[in-house]
Amino acid sequence: MSVLIVGSTALDSIKTPKAENPRLLGGSASHAAVAASFFAPVKLVGIVGEDFPKKYLSLYRRHGVDLEGLQIAPGKTFHWSGEYELNMNNRRTLETELGVFETFTPRLPASYQNSPFVLLANIAPSLQHHVLNQMRRPKFVVADTMDLWLNIALPDLIKLLKRVDGFVLNDSEARQLTQEDNVIAALKKIHKLGPKYVIIKKGEHGALLSTGRGLFISPAYPLHRVVDPTGAGDSFVGGMMGYLSTARGSIESNLRRAMIYGSVVASFCCEGFGLKFTTRVTRAAIEARFKKLEQLTKF
Amino acid sequence: MSVLIVGSTALDSIKTPKAENPRLLGGSASHAAVAASFFAPVKLVGIVGEDFPKKYLSLYRRHGVDLEGLQIAPGKTFHWSGEYELNMNNRRTLETELGVFETFTPRLPASYQNSPFVLLANIAPSLQHHVLNQMRRPKFVVADTMDLWLNIALPDLIKLLKRVDGFVLNDSEARQLTQEDNVIAALKKIHKLGPKYVIIKKGEHGALLSTGRGLFISPAYPLHRVVDPTGAGDSFVGGMMGYLSTARGSIESNLRRAMIYGSVVASFCCEGFGLKFTTRVTRAAIEARFKKLEQLTKF
Repeated sequence: MSVLIVGSTALDSIKTPKAENPRLLGGSASHAAVAASFFAPVKLVGIVGEDFPKKYLSLYRRHGVDLEGLQIAPGKTFHWSGEYELNMNNRRTLETELGVFETFTPRLPASYQNSPFVLLANIAPSLQHHVLNQMRRPKFVVADTMDLWLNIALPDLIKLLKRVDGFVLNDSEARQLTQEDNVIAALKKIHKLGPKYVIIKKGEHGALLSTGRGLFISPAYPLHRVVDPTGAGDSFVGGMMGYLSTARGSIESNLRRAMIYGSVVASFCCEGFGLKFTTRVTRAAIEARFKKLEQLTKF
Repeated sequence: MSVLIVGSTALDSIKTPKAENPRLLGGSASHAAVAASFFAPVKLVGIVGEDFPKKYLSLYRRHGVDLEGLQIAPGKTFHWSGEYELNMNNRRTLETELGVFETFTPRLPASYQNSPFVLLANIAPSLQHHVLNQMRRPKFVVADTMDLWLNIALPDLIKLLKRVDGFVLNDSEARQLTQEDNVIAALKKIHKLGPKYVIIKKGEHGALLSTGRGLFISPAYPLHRVVDPTGAGDSFVGGMMGYLSTARGSIESNLRRAMIYGSVVASFCCEGFGLKFTTRVTRAAIEARFKKLEQLTKF
């Protein structure tokens, strides 16, 4: 089955202590779509400007991403530039130019409205609502978010949580949302806001899944070198939703393996700038790291 | 087989935002000894002053800890007082009174010198050397340390690393020791300093084992509430060494399970002040959390 993904489609200019990479393909939806594409057909909902490089449209297409829902609007593509410190956990935004994103209203083509799996990747909660409003009874809806929306759009986000099956956020966002320092205790509070499945991303420390009935401790794939972690979280949820949409059996029984696949794709994402490394990955390479993670965690 | 444990034997006064607990039984050797005692007989090497409460000697004895190597010297017991913030990852030392520890020279009774398993718990590297100098060909030696020794006794520590089989340190210490931000890369550098087995403790994020031949990602037992994390790292290595000393088969084949047992005992340690909770734990409760960790990580 296919996965519908809405989120930001952007150009990222990324500086690290070792390199500078202008105008890479970026945005939450781009990373999630490419990650999901290794497992399932993807329908993309987003917006880019007239300056959006043709080669990036080709990249989407090479990954089998349906672009009927991608609007190409007069104006400039959303552009983010940021800088990482030597410790890759610390980054700062240098500039954000919203461009065509400022007036973005997601419009779902008729062929998208029956998509069973929906990933509301990181984007304003009002736009995530707007996408859901156009859907016909999806089977499984997951929303991602970021600290910005907790700060400026919390009521929208809280409303959204009553409409989704799964909610993904990172550990600092979980603390911010619940005013709870202990992430295990935070998980309980987040369930009360609506979602049946809550996933807390912890970067290099992996992720936690809470199903209300219990926890799953998911490892991160260990890397000797992180080139650029931008988009790793988006790759994680994208890979997870891609796998879920094709796996047989219940969501509950597949979620753990789905998270491991998500971790694997996220690890590839970190090994190159933007999507440079991820786009060259094969399904066989993904399976090899999946097996490796089994070995690394068995006791 | 028995485990010989040398380290600090102290009185800890611990403040948290919610409570204040003066003069608890503490110190790296106390935590490690009690943790190891659930699995194996323990021989303790340490020093306390004449003010050391009799009830703490009884506590050691209840756990079957051999006290022949515990010196009771004229003067005061080592006393540490510290304060935790609401976020339990942040603590500061309020006061350190070395007392009898200032002139401590570990002396091993004859009955200790053949101990096959040796845990050099956190204490000055010169004292760790001093214990090893009195041993006859132990089977497996593990050393723990802390940032203080990296700062003031690095040459001693570097020499020690050539004499031990296993080395345990936390992630920030690994970064400090290797000048390497990435812990996976740091592991490689630490192997080059001598130890065949390197374990990096990551607190609530678990631990990493590197055997040179590969990694093991060990989970932490998830807790809804951390009362006092003091001694959790010592409980981890103590539990690990206790299990290792009694398990059949090679060290290499038992280390993963040993780390899980260590994590479990460390989780109990965090649930009470000082050793209050740990001392009430049963082997059955340990086995139950071990099984639970299997369920929490399976995929």
